[in-house]
Amino acid sequence: MRIFEEMESEVRGYVRSFPVVFDKAEGSELFDENGNRFIDFFAGAGTLNYGHNNPKITEALIEYLQHKGIVHGLDKATMAKREFMTKFRDTILAPRGLQYKMQFTGPTGTNAVETALKLARMIKRRSNVIAFTNGYHGLTMGALGVTGNYFYKDESYGSRANTAFMPFDGFLGEGVDSIEYMRKFLSDPSSGVDLPAAVIVETVQGEGGINVASVEWLKRLEELCREFDILLIIDDIQVGNGRTGTFFSFERAGIHPDMVTLSKSIGGGLPMALLLMRPELDQWSPGEHTGTFRGNNLAFVASTQALSYWDNDDMGKVVEYKGNIIEEELKKMAADFPELEPQVRGVGMVWGLELAAGMANEASQEAFTRGLVMETAGADDQVLKFLPSLLIEEDILREGLQIVRDSLTALVEKQRKMITGEES
Amino acid sequence: MRIFEEMESEVRGYVRSFPVVFDKAEGSELFDENGNRFIDFFAGAGTLNYGHNNPKITEALIEYLQHKGIVHGLDKATMAKREFMTKFRDTILAPRGLQYKMQFTGPTGTNAVETALKLARMIKRRSNVIAFTNGYHGLTMGALGVTGNYFYKDESYGSRANTAFMPFDGFLGEGVDSIEYMRKFLSDPSSGVDLPAAVIVETVQGEGGINVASVEWLKRLEELCREFDILLIIDDIQVGNGRTGTFFSFERAGIHPDMVTLSKSIGGGLPMALLLMRPELDQWSPGEHTGTFRGNNLAFVASTQALSYWDNDDMGKVVEYKGNIIEEELKKMAADFPELEPQVRGVGMVWGLELAAGMANEASQEAFTRGLVMETAGADDQVLKFLPSLLIEEDILREGLQIVRDSLTALVEKQRKMITGEES
Amino acid sequence: MRIFEEMESEVRGYVRSFPVVFDKAEGSELFDENGNRFIDFFAGAGTLNYGHNNPKITEALIEYLQHKGIVHGLDKATMAKREFMTKFRDTILAPRGLQYKMQFTGPTGTNAVETALKLARMIKRRSNVIAFTNGYHGLTMGALGVTGNYFYKDESYGSRANTAFMPFDGFLGEGVDSIEYMRKFLSDPSSGVDLPAAVIVETVQGEGGINVASVEWLKRLEELCREFDILLIIDDIQVGNGRTGTFFSFERAGIHPDMVTLSKSIGGGLPMALLLMRPELDQWSPGEHTGTFRGNNLAFVASTQALSYWDNDDMGKVVEYKGNIIEEELKKMAADFPELEPQVRGVGMVWGLELAAGMANEASQEAFTRGLVMETAGADDQVLKFLPSLLIEEDILREGLQIVRDSLTALVEKQRKMITGEES
Amino acid sequence: MRIFEEMESEVRGYVRSFPVVFDKAEGSELFDENGNRFIDFFAGAGTLNYGHNNPKITEALIEYLQHKGIVHGLDKATMAKREFMTKFRDTILAPRGLQYKMQFTGPTGTNAVETALKLARMIKRRSNVIAFTNGYHGLTMGALGVTGNYFYKDESYGSRANTAFMPFDGFLGEGVDSIEYMRKFLSDPSSGVDLPAAVIVETVQGEGGINVASVEWLKRLEELCREFDILLIIDDIQVGNGRTGTFFSFERAGIHPDMVTLSKSIGGGLPMALLLMRPELDQWSPGEHTGTFRGNNLAFVASTQALSYWDNDDMGKVVEYKGNIIEEELKKMAADFPELEPQVRGVGMVWGLELAAGMANEASQEAFTRGLVMETAGADDQVLKFLPSLLIEEDILREGLQIVRDSLTALVEKQRKMITGEES
Repeated sequence: MRIFEEMESEVRGYVRSFPVVFDKAEGSELFDENGNRFIDFFAGAGTLNYGHNNPKITEALIEYLQHKGIVHGLDKATMAKREFMTKFRDTILAPRGLQYKMQFTGPTGTNAVETALKLARMIKRRSNVIAFTNGYHGLTMGALGVTGNYFYKDESYGSRANTAFMPFDGFLGEGVDSIEYMRKFLSDPSSGVDLPAAVIVETVQGEGGINVASVEWLKRLEELCREFDILLIIDDIQVGNGRTGTFFSFERAGIHPDMVTLSKSIGGGLPMALLLMRPELDQWSPGEHTGTFRGNNLAFVASTQALSYWDNDDMGKVVEYKGNIIEEELKKMAADFPELEPQVRGVGMVWGLELAAGMANEASQEAFTRGLVMETAGADDQVLKFLPSLLIEEDILREGLQIVRDSLTALVEKQRKMITGEES
Repeated sequence: MRIFEEMESEVRGYVRSFPVVFDKAEGSELFDENGNRFIDFFAGAGTLNYGHNNPKITEALIEYLQHKGIVHGLDKATMAKREFMTKFRDTILAPRGLQYKMQFTGPTGTNAVETALKLARMIKRRSNVIAFTNGYHGLTMGALGVTGNYFYKDESYGSRANTAFMPFDGFLGEGVDSIEYMRKFLSDPSSGVDLPAAVIVETVQGEGGINVASVEWLKRLEELCREFDILLIIDDIQVGNGRTGTFFSFERAGIHPDMVTLSKSIGGGLPMALLLMRPELDQWSPGEHTGTFRGNNLAFVASTQALSYWDNDDMGKVVEYKGNIIEEELKKMAADFPELEPQVRGVGMVWGLELAAGMANEASQEAFTRGLVMETAGADDQVLKFLPSLLIEEDILREGLQIVRDSLTALVEKQRKMITGEES
Repeated sequence: MRIFEEMESEVRGYVRSFPVVFDKAEGSELFDENGNRFIDFFAGAGTLNYGHNNPKITEALIEYLQHKGIVHGLDKATMAKREFMTKFRDTILAPRGLQYKMQFTGPTGTNAVETALKLARMIKRRSNVIAFTNGYHGLTMGALGVTGNYFYKDESYGSRANTAFMPFDGFLGEGVDSIEYMRKFLSDPSSGVDLPAAVIVETVQGEGGINVASVEWLKRLEELCREFDILLIIDDIQVGNGRTGTFFSFERAGIHPDMVTLSKSIGGGLPMALLLMRPELDQWSPGEHTGTFRGNNLAFVASTQALSYWDNDDMGKVVEYKGNIIEEELKKMAADFPELEPQVRGVGMVWGLELAAGMANEASQEAFTRGLVMETAGADDQVLKFLPSLLIEEDILREGLQIVRDSLTALVEKQRKMITGEES
Repeated sequence: MRIFEEMESEVRGYVRSFPVVFDKAEGSELFDENGNRFIDFFAGAGTLNYGHNNPKITEALIEYLQHKGIVHGLDKATMAKREFMTKFRDTILAPRGLQYKMQFTGPTGTNAVETALKLARMIKRRSNVIAFTNGYHGLTMGALGVTGNYFYKDESYGSRANTAFMPFDGFLGEGVDSIEYMRKFLSDPSSGVDLPAAVIVETVQGEGGINVASVEWLKRLEELCREFDILLIIDDIQVGNGRTGTFFSFERAGIHPDMVTLSKSIGGGLPMALLLMRPELDQWSPGEHTGTFRGNNLAFVASTQALSYWDNDDMGKVVEYKGNIIEEELKKMAADFPELEPQVRGVGMVWGLELAAGMANEASQEAFTRGLVMETAGADDQVLKFLPSLLIEEDILREGLQIVRDSLTALVEKQRKMITGEES
């Protein structure tokens, strides 16, 4: 491990939480250099919805490399790209009746978000954009401008430009209608909140602490956008790609966004990002927005394989089935550990267990010593985040959930000892 | 090709210039789906310094995939990452006496630039940054702020924030000392140009039209930065990785930047970006800047192989040898086609042939029909850009240069006919 | 009138609403060049709280001019300035137990606002500021940034910088606690609303349409500021100087702002602006903020006279007495003209009569033809604004109110005729 | 003096340099409360070109007040305003063949500058503006953005927005053509300096240290603006109103700006500001830019009187005659005190004597003890600024110049003693 401490920037994070050197991985299992096994409830922060080294993907990649297929292509036409585009159109867009054009951006989510914001501002000739409390959209300057999390901001970056933050569903408390709040600001031209080019929103805030927008709220948000001629951008980077049970997370609300950002699992584990836009919004000039790695062909190859999981509607059922297991177990834990002040939130296969201050991080650490990798979310890392591969085997899922339960038991016991003064 | 027109955004560019579907590639040769062969003088805009599907790299990738090595790792420690860091330290940094810490950013150059600017502003508590005329640093909002090229800007993005543009070497004309110009602005606290956190500069402006900063200018720029306590950031994304004959492009000037951004060829053809910083500048908090694909382990594997080309100092000789061939041939062409008002600029294996208005694009198109892929650069695409793989075989290099010559001959002939009214 | 049309910018406004050339004025009466008399319910938008050509003020000015007193003094010490400062301390600050230091800014309200914002940002080292829906603080760029009214904004000014707009009391509808909403945003560091340096607020929004903040709301706003270490700036430019019945408008709420901006009537009708700040906030360096006319000594002379109205507490009683007359009459009108959808709002001697769309402007025009000058307020000019001199004679006040009533009668009659198709 | 220290903000400046309480003034003489006399070489920083309490002006003001003329009129038509507009048109504009429309702004120079910038940005739909090194245009946020002087800036104000600073005439040293440099930046669309809406410039930088732009430079600047469709704004606040020998300072260059800002002496000593604009630029909507004191009628009365000095062309001769006296005397001093490293700069009746570091402030202090009030200019207060009333009597002018000479003699003597160690 020494070279990481010596040579890698202090900015490194996960390597501190999980201080082993990982060697290989398969499906939902990771192995470190000493052969120790870890269950993965983290899935690359949503990048590995189809598991580590999914055999279909690996096989296709090896074959492509052996064939000497184009690996780096900028936006030249390649067979791998053509295959991906065809597959995406036929498997994802057409069956859902969605007409979107595709723009390949630099292969990171933040680049897709920057691209969407740029296009929206350019089309509407308005610089203001509405974002939401606790939203997370990335850390390059444009994306950071719409990210709420204070931890990533600094006065000297000047990242506050041209964004108005509005309350996400539930932010103002139960029963307060935050869409109505927004409508007031938008209806009154002298509210100080200028008419925005776009609204950007996650249907489930992942980094923000697994905050699930209700179907009703999303529908009304869409209506609001239509009413005021505002573009609706769904950032589906973390919770798209089947995470909530449908390919796009917004399907459950029956809405039709103007733009959709995709990244993370869209590349089947490899760097890739995609912006979908309604055809009439495709007002770019050729080459007006570019990026060296927008043609990461290995990701196209991987993605084409990954998309084949959506050839029929089994994936939805799989997510529902396993999601129910997670929900059920979390609710039991919540009932069994009231001293941790637990709250359970989620949908599909993205779940959060909010715990009392500091507890989530401790639980994550405890779980790691017991062979489970999972991260925390929320502005103060107050939420244990359950984000396993969609393809996780049921027994491994249950094994992982048992580790979580055991970890909470251990935490509570430790607390009890601290309070009663017993030796620890 | 139809699906590209139907489904891909109008923003697509190279697919229009090179309207074939590429199938595979090896070294400096590309093949389309019909088996047609093209020589590559473009090298993925500097990403393929080691050629397409370099066998050492391909082999290592296949082996890694077969071993089920970690593919996506965020910033967890992996064996592939450890190997890369060790290799980079031992092969690149140590022999050059450079002490830098490494930060892995989202795997695009623009993300590395954003990271560098963010860190500089945070450390110096100054928001201003100096950039140069015709510089190109990327298109996300922070990077766009330091990019000169008007084509990528729009009033509604508000991309002008916190940057002062200064004249690059030669911008004000021959014999005008633009460092002295900058010194005037910096010396006078009431010049209106606030003391910047950093200066960001390419030693050779690639996109800007192959503008080569002189050694003298670079040395004096470094002195200026030291004199005024300004951080010097070298953007070595396009011209680092051996392109100018040394691994870092700034080695020829004997300067020691505070930060260096690397991307493109650093990943051996796969998406990767790296920020190097002096250890004392590594003032990040853990996790303060992140990115989902900052741990693209396939790129680490590829990169480790690529770096082995720097185990001895042969690469420098190779670049010098082939660079001389290019220079010599371009100068001959310049002499032979005065009607095209040619100008030759370059260093190492990055060369530009500036032609009269519109001619460079025509030459590129003509060359493509003759089996050569090359792009243009400069604000008005006025420069034919020579950026072959560093490992290009001499005969293929000469073959490509001959195609350029033939294309120019054809252009001149066509012009002559147009003027004289002969049938075309 | 021709020269105004020929030579004055199209930006001219009141000259269009009141198209006569005024010659002289006394108290609450204006006379045009033909000797026509007009009652003034407008009072220079709050500048003439002590009436036109108040004899005490006029006499003092003439005497000062005859003495050859310093007229223009920048911030040199003059006898007139000393007299003003002493008077302000002894008559206004000391009896109220207020310890403020005084800063004389360029003699316009917007300059005082700019100064307050600058100081707050400098002290707190935070650039964000909270302002309120429908607030009006001036039109220079910094002040415009905290002004809600859309009419004054334009995308190219970039006036949105570093401000978050929050709902003013009542903006979200009856019974909605907008302080609680603000607390949510401030409590959650990841709400996207950065901790501001200051909150700037009018206790009664004059231009915004005579929106009166409740005492409870103001108290809770002050608490919120204390809780989060935010400076509280009261913009008392229009409703200070006794307009609400106490010298400062915030006295009714019993709060103690960190800064107070004063202008309009503070100069007794002459250009003057003043920033009050708690002594510990006075962290300026000498000369760090200046303005050529910050020493308008004629205004000091006028102001000293005007302040003598506050030697005892009669002014409060006067305002209460006349305010009651206005309120009573407006409520009667509201009851008598339901077809105009009237709403009555106000406090002290600042009152608004909101009417159905377009009616307020028509009423103002109609009233003018009957010898009454009054303006409209609100984002859509939907509110008739009652802002007579505090010293208006009761009979003139009643005469003016009768003209308003007559004008409304005429409007309603005209409407009736239009609807029934009678000849107009 | 105690109340100034007790109650006035630390920001106070001149009261520190000239620590007496001034009582009255006449022409170019000031008297403190103890009857001490001071000659005024400062003229209210250019506000008192016609002297203190000019009898024509005082008489007209008293008469107006006695008549009960409108004092505060917003932009209602008044007889005083009509008279001013007629006088300005007939005396100033028409004889010079200038067709400008007039906009009355809040009565401070900075408000006029804000207005000009706002209009320019609105018309051209470009947010960028070019300003010059060491320019001074005021301190409200928009004006501060084009002011070079670092002393007034702070990172937290964010005052750098949308301005590019270019080198003023001479800034880069003798013989360097800074217009040519600007042309380079403007000609190359990828220079990073976006095409600006306007250029704002002083023909003589007053606060900046009496830097006189050459006629040639101004002519070429105008040409440059025409060539690139950029509006040319002359800020004539300090050096207009006859200061350089013609009413407008740009007359000596024979140029025709698109907009001109006037303030300081335009109001005859009272607060007033005026924006002149070519008629085709007058694209405001009614009321789109306002200000409570834009109708300071006392200033109109004073101004009308002041303008009568321009009924014939005597003023030009007067300025030339006295300017020659100043120049001659300053040049003699420069020759006589080489140890102070003096440099003499100026035109008309605005002159600067730059001295070695710290000396100008000391000289100003020394002169004050000898009965002369004069200020310093330049970023480091390195320039003694000669700005007497244009109407100063020759003997008082010579008396003042003698005091300057005596002060320099005293300084040099003091220095000599310090060096030689004699008792001081």
